[in-house]
Amino acid sequence: MKIPPVKGTRDFYPPQMAVRNFLSDGWKAVSLRNGFVEYDGPIFEYLRMYQVKSGDEIVEQLFHLTDRGGRELAIRPEITPTLARMINQQINALPRPIKWFSMPRLCRAERPQKGRLREFFQWNIDIVGVDDVLADAEVIFCTLDYLRSVGLSSSDIIAKISSRKLLAALLEHVGVPHDKLDGLYPILDKKAKLPGEAFVEMVAGVVESSQAVDKLLALMEVHSAGQIKDIVPDIAANDIAQAALDEVHQVFDLLEAMGVGDYCRFDMSIVRGLAYYTGIVFEVHDAVGDLRAVCGGGRYDNLLRDFGGPSVPATGMGMGDCVLEILLRDRGLLTEGMFKRKMDYFVACADSNLRPKAMEIVARLRQSGAATEFSYKSANLGKQLKAADACGARHCLIIGQEYSTDKKLVLKEMASGTQSLVNESNFLEKSAFIQ
Amino acid sequence: MKIPPVKGTRDFYPPQMAVRNFLSDGWKAVSLRNGFVEYDGPIFEYLRMYQVKSGDEIVEQLFHLTDRGGRELAIRPEITPTLARMINQQINALPRPIKWFSMPRLCRAERPQKGRLREFFQWNIDIVGVDDVLADAEVIFCTLDYLRSVGLSSSDIIAKISSRKLLAALLEHVGVPHDKLDGLYPILDKKAKLPGEAFVEMVAGVVESSQAVDKLLALMEVHSAGQIKDIVPDIAANDIAQAALDEVHQVFDLLEAMGVGDYCRFDMSIVRGLAYYTGIVFEVHDAVGDLRAVCGGGRYDNLLRDFGGPSVPATGMGMGDCVLEILLRDRGLLTEGMFKRKMDYFVACADSNLRPKAMEIVARLRQSGAATEFSYKSANLGKQLKAADACGARHCLIIGQEYSTDKKLVLKEMASGTQSLVNESNFLEKSAFIQ
Repeated sequence: MKIPPVKGTRDFYPPQMAVRNFLSDGWKAVSLRNGFVEYDGPIFEYLRMYQVKSGDEIVEQLFHLTDRGGRELAIRPEITPTLARMINQQINALPRPIKWFSMPRLCRAERPQKGRLREFFQWNIDIVGVDDVLADAEVIFCTLDYLRSVGLSSSDIIAKISSRKLLAALLEHVGVPHDKLDGLYPILDKKAKLPGEAFVEMVAGVVESSQAVDKLLALMEVHSAGQIKDIVPDIAANDIAQAALDEVHQVFDLLEAMGVGDYCRFDMSIVRGLAYYTGIVFEVHDAVGDLRAVCGGGRYDNLLRDFGGPSVPATGMGMGDCVLEILLRDRGLLTEGMFKRKMDYFVACADSNLRPKAMEIVARLRQSGAATEFSYKSANLGKQLKAADACGARHCLIIGQEYSTDKKLVLKEMASGTQSLVNESNFLEKSAFIQ
Repeated sequence: MKIPPVKGTRDFYPPQMAVRNFLSDGWKAVSLRNGFVEYDGPIFEYLRMYQVKSGDEIVEQLFHLTDRGGRELAIRPEITPTLARMINQQINALPRPIKWFSMPRLCRAERPQKGRLREFFQWNIDIVGVDDVLADAEVIFCTLDYLRSVGLSSSDIIAKISSRKLLAALLEHVGVPHDKLDGLYPILDKKAKLPGEAFVEMVAGVVESSQAVDKLLALMEVHSAGQIKDIVPDIAANDIAQAALDEVHQVFDLLEAMGVGDYCRFDMSIVRGLAYYTGIVFEVHDAVGDLRAVCGGGRYDNLLRDFGGPSVPATGMGMGDCVLEILLRDRGLLTEGMFKRKMDYFVACADSNLRPKAMEIVARLRQSGAATEFSYKSANLGKQLKAADACGARHCLIIGQEYSTDKKLVLKEMASGTQSLVNESNFLEKSAFIQ
């Protein structure tokens, strides 16, 4: 009986696994150098945890199950609720600021499409306990530090930055009732994916005043902080809006100082659909605009409280592996040569009677830390040299005639083809053989 | 609303995550130096995949669910069925031998107890396509290469090795009917966990002949291959048994040659419960015998065929993280000092006006690859130096008075306390600052 893999999941054969490791190794290295420490939670949580704050859209997309104890569980579709739960559990013991990263496997029962699968990996970084836009700037910097490290330049990607706090203040200022805001965000978030008319219609369905709708539509087109006062000339009179705008300027100044200003652009249409964002929000998009967002994030100062904890400020970012991989491939930044297998040694045994000796040498090389391969079949040396080449061995150590007569090994450097005779014990004793 | 974690799962706060990474980094390094390449599958598969060959015990322990498309799925309780599926899918394209490793997250709905949780990680290594005990020996060597690398000596652990083929031949030889064998293995596998009488009773429930039961019980006490002929004097007359015994001797000779002979012991009572084993089987136990098996494995030549593929020989090993961690802690091989945070630099900003400059330097250090931390609060230098110490910084770079007057930074080596004045541009230009 042959059973297929489940729709929307991926099998990671070694070549695909090498790409996945390339992404997660990079996420990890950049997280660590930016001062984040790693955490993780379980693959499933109580179903009701995802009903707290993530909006109906995510709850519909859950893989959920009832265990034998009658617990209603769900495979995690995101890790932020787990983060909130874990931090709340130890809120008094954890030294602050909490700078954590994770690279969880997540599952969503969505319709599989380009850049969107039912199972994926997502890099998350979060700074909890800092009520300062410096933390928002650091999250954006860390995100760009990674994307730059894999070769994406400011002509490949754009970090679009806005502020939920600014947007909320401006919308209220132009006449959108406060209680309409939470319902409006998911619509504004879909703007880029909707035909213009459909978008306007949906907005008008929530906001009654046509004047307010017009102002809102104009705000959505703002691509520099300076343009705002063209639409809202009296912004300075609105303390909240002005303070939020000042924060935006601070973030841009910091990003400029940190050397990633060329990647960053103000964009009022960046809203983020989820209700929980409260301040600076951002998304990174490919410059051409062909793909879904590479990542997104922002400030969510109320989430820990919503999960039963104290009110603690927080800001973070999530980046999935699917769109990222597509983008890197598109830009020629993932090439086969990057993932070639490499071994330090290949031990070729030219005489099956010497097999125990060959295995002894293989074992000693491995134990010393040298990646070492061999062939299960003795005798045909030509085939073994081909196998050495195939696994990317730098050196081939041949155990044959010269061993039987003089206890000597033939050491062949694969790239140059140079061969030399080495004394077995000398070779194994000098730690220099780990190269 | 406060929601607890699900019973039998673990939260990996940074200290626990550091331990998990220590285990998986070691698994990975040893796998690679032993010539294995990494693969992975999805977290869930079709439920029926686990009904093929893993015995009812595992199927009962599944977390299963029905997705919105009506598919019956299960979170993977082991990765071997996925391995079989993936290899069968590409059987003609994959170069052989297939030497793969994986470190999957697995879930089983078992009663949580010491060394056994509902969610855990398991190191798997498998060699597919090699019908030679050399591959069995290599799997055992690789397992011990890892356990030795984390500090476990042959006085801490024992690799108990037997042969399913030998056991089957001997049992049939002493009068156990062939068709009783598959039902007998799970009972023999539980011997160590059962009171003696209960074990005998269960065996007698399957095997009718009391003479056969006596011989079987005697065989279970055999702890060296030489003892077998005391119980089965005419073993040489049984070709299959003799060939299986020869294989066992070959494996021991190879393990001796590979320098791990002192860890290995023949033990006829090692059976492995699952029906799919066909040859050499082994388990590693703590020497005291306090804990469950650290790992287990063996040859399973029919599994790929049972999953709808061709008949391809295979041998492998699985090692969970739970018992391993308990054992390492017991032996004092996991200490807090191993997991201390380390940073290359801490950038202290003694004047809030210099914040942009501080962030520029932080960013440049990080971009160059140096792990760099800073404090969100300026001004109090004493507190910042404490923070530098807390995050394990080797150097603290202080931006204060000397910068305002002379564009100089104070570089403090944290261990010695030595301070020196460095010129900003010189410091940032020399690549030597990555240490």
